[in-house]
Amino acid sequence: MAAIITLTTDFGLTDAYVAEMKGVILSVNPEAKLVDICHAIRPQDISQAAFVLSTACKSFPRGTVHVVVVDPGVGSERRAIILRTPRADFVAPDNGVLSYVIQESSAAPVDGNSGCRQVGLEPGLQAVAITRSQFWRSPVSPTFHGRDIFAPVAARLSLGFPPADFGETVTSVRVLPLSHPYRAPDGALVGHIIHVDGFGNLITDIKDDDLPRTKEALTFSVGGRQIPGLSRTYAEGGGLLALIGGSGHLEISVKEGSASAFLGAGIGDEVRSETRCGH
Amino acid sequence: MAAIITLTTDFGLTDAYVAEMKGVILSVNPEAKLVDICHAIRPQDISQAAFVLSTACKSFPRGTVHVVVVDPGVGSERRAIILRTPRADFVAPDNGVLSYVIQESSAAPVDGNSGCRQVGLEPGLQAVAITRSQFWRSPVSPTFHGRDIFAPVAARLSLGFPPADFGETVTSVRVLPLSHPYRAPDGALVGHIIHVDGFGNLITDIKDDDLPRTKEALTFSVGGRQIPGLSRTYAEGGGLLALIGGSGHLEISVKEGSASAFLGAGIGDEVRSETRCGH
Amino acid sequence: MAAIITLTTDFGLTDAYVAEMKGVILSVNPEAKLVDICHAIRPQDISQAAFVLSTACKSFPRGTVHVVVVDPGVGSERRAIILRTPRADFVAPDNGVLSYVIQESSAAPVDGNSGCRQVGLEPGLQAVAITRSQFWRSPVSPTFHGRDIFAPVAARLSLGFPPADFGETVTSVRVLPLSHPYRAPDGALVGHIIHVDGFGNLITDIKDDDLPRTKEALTFSVGGRQIPGLSRTYAEGGGLLALIGGSGHLEISVKEGSASAFLGAGIGDEVRSETRCGH
Repeated sequence: MAAIITLTTDFGLTDAYVAEMKGVILSVNPEAKLVDICHAIRPQDISQAAFVLSTACKSFPRGTVHVVVVDPGVGSERRAIILRTPRADFVAPDNGVLSYVIQESSAAPVDGNSGCRQVGLEPGLQAVAITRSQFWRSPVSPTFHGRDIFAPVAARLSLGFPPADFGETVTSVRVLPLSHPYRAPDGALVGHIIHVDGFGNLITDIKDDDLPRTKEALTFSVGGRQIPGLSRTYAEGGGLLALIGGSGHLEISVKEGSASAFLGAGIGDEVRSETRCGH
Repeated sequence: MAAIITLTTDFGLTDAYVAEMKGVILSVNPEAKLVDICHAIRPQDISQAAFVLSTACKSFPRGTVHVVVVDPGVGSERRAIILRTPRADFVAPDNGVLSYVIQESSAAPVDGNSGCRQVGLEPGLQAVAITRSQFWRSPVSPTFHGRDIFAPVAARLSLGFPPADFGETVTSVRVLPLSHPYRAPDGALVGHIIHVDGFGNLITDIKDDDLPRTKEALTFSVGGRQIPGLSRTYAEGGGLLALIGGSGHLEISVKEGSASAFLGAGIGDEVRSETRCGH
Repeated sequence: MAAIITLTTDFGLTDAYVAEMKGVILSVNPEAKLVDICHAIRPQDISQAAFVLSTACKSFPRGTVHVVVVDPGVGSERRAIILRTPRADFVAPDNGVLSYVIQESSAAPVDGNSGCRQVGLEPGLQAVAITRSQFWRSPVSPTFHGRDIFAPVAARLSLGFPPADFGETVTSVRVLPLSHPYRAPDGALVGHIIHVDGFGNLITDIKDDDLPRTKEALTFSVGGRQIPGLSRTYAEGGGLLALIGGSGHLEISVKEGSASAFLGAGIGDEVRSETRCGH
């Protein structure tokens, strides 16, 4: 069964850790199609992994199995879970790395407020704690659950085994404190930088839909700088740009440069969107 | 249909952009075999991508579909094209990134002289402008045609759809100003550095065939340095070497070091090949 | 035949060299499943490649073909070999890069003492020198045997051709001087750092089995530092840790940091394991 299994880790590419997981997966499901999403997640940066995964998984076919190993708590009491959404299965530590995936499958905003916390799952989402060791490699290395638990579980899931085979159902999972844009008293929409990509583009929590339909009069501010108007592409204008990136989020970019370095801006910083006077 | 689709981009590996393209391709053709050629093309370096692609594609089976996304003009008026050669299909922006591929499929030298320009295609090459949106993802992000146009077009092409299904035939495409070695008045063959690889090897536009059959008496000069004789391998001699690299081009190398750093030499610099006196 | 072929090289990911090998493999066996083990081996670091390969190959299914191209002697007199073990086939230069693989398939310690030397193969291991050129690409580039010899040989091997088709049997191969832990006069077990991973973890030649069953009383010293007790996971304690890593070897680690940088320690340095007084 030519199921697709993707991998997102903070393992980097200078060791064989990713390959070990692939070897285990192919030992269980020789037909699996393996796709790397990203192995350059900053070590233990759950938030970065959560964003990258949620963006990428939208482009994959229904039924894809996504494995995430950004797992500072490996070997400790943290749970490992399978999350089944209408589109895909996720195999991951229960540490918030599925926060954006859960948010996008939920009607109400999901967030952990201050600190990571448990949230209940909406109908349509199913989660199990991975507790039944019969599908694990043996012995399990306490430092490498990615290879010894996540990989074989994902491979079997890709063969059609139901999530319930791997452990008991859970009704709540951990999520990160996700930011949301808010309306300031002066009418401006205030968003936050939630991701900095490899080019230094600043991706915000403001989505295309959050902006008014007629965008001609929009103006943006970030890090003390004004950006007049929304560009369509990276090639337009010069210097600092605001545009809707491929993820559907408002992003701040510098033509042929790093907006992050140029502005000294990073995750959590505010980006304001306003309508110019006269409109 | 287990078609091979390769990817060459300047996206790097720290984000999920490459994976998004793969997800889209596998959504259209679940059997496609995906192979990364290179994602470390310097941002927007069309010339580097053109060389790397043309070198790599020679090793792939007939019928491979090569996708290139080094696309500074994404979202602007630049065309996207499918180029079909006797060996392979290419899906790329029409910005010169297929220059070497076109040159190698053409009898006459192809070049854009000063600046990128249009050249007519020789018989045996077929090109279409990708204009029919029916196979694109919808909506198309103006910043990510790689995912929304190139990926689904390449996937369908790999299923056997003919190029004509994707848009109208074009008879000329853009090429970069490609350099060619020339014969100096003193009889020396003067070539140019056209590529610097990751090890700092300096790859020139002089090919094996451009050099005389009896190579014992050859001597080379670059950056004010003399290199006596052509080596067979990187392991021979010490210091600066001239040899025919895996691409069939003359290259300048430093044993266990970077010739580029050692010589301070780069793209466009001249390399002279002469026959030593007495021969 | 959906054979798995893995690749381990020092080519990096900024050029198309790896992709050229993949293109050649798929030209011979279009059904091969290609898995990258690592392409970030330090240039010509045979020892690093040997360790990474031997660790990774244990996770792959029986019958996998592993290709290694860390080959400072390419084009010289060094032999290329196929090694068949009960688990897998290896296609590699005969330069010691298979040392750990051979050691782990052998009953007696294998080592080259001072300098790389020939060792005889134990029963159960079969090796041939790759000398029959009929399966090679033609012409063979003297600088790129990975593409022109190793790749097509591995692809044919993956189709079920027996090793003997590729050249004559050899009864001894080259191995590196491998270190082994020894018992000091004071009773301490003294091991050596044999690998530094991308996170700076220091991996030693001491294996789980070399340590006493009751590990509560163990204490370790490295680089003039004492480490009281063996941790189970990277998350435990603070600062310097000793633990059994995913490879089954004792490793020295720093929580959220690089033990290599912290200790200024590297390959060959000693790590002592002792039982605390009173036990």
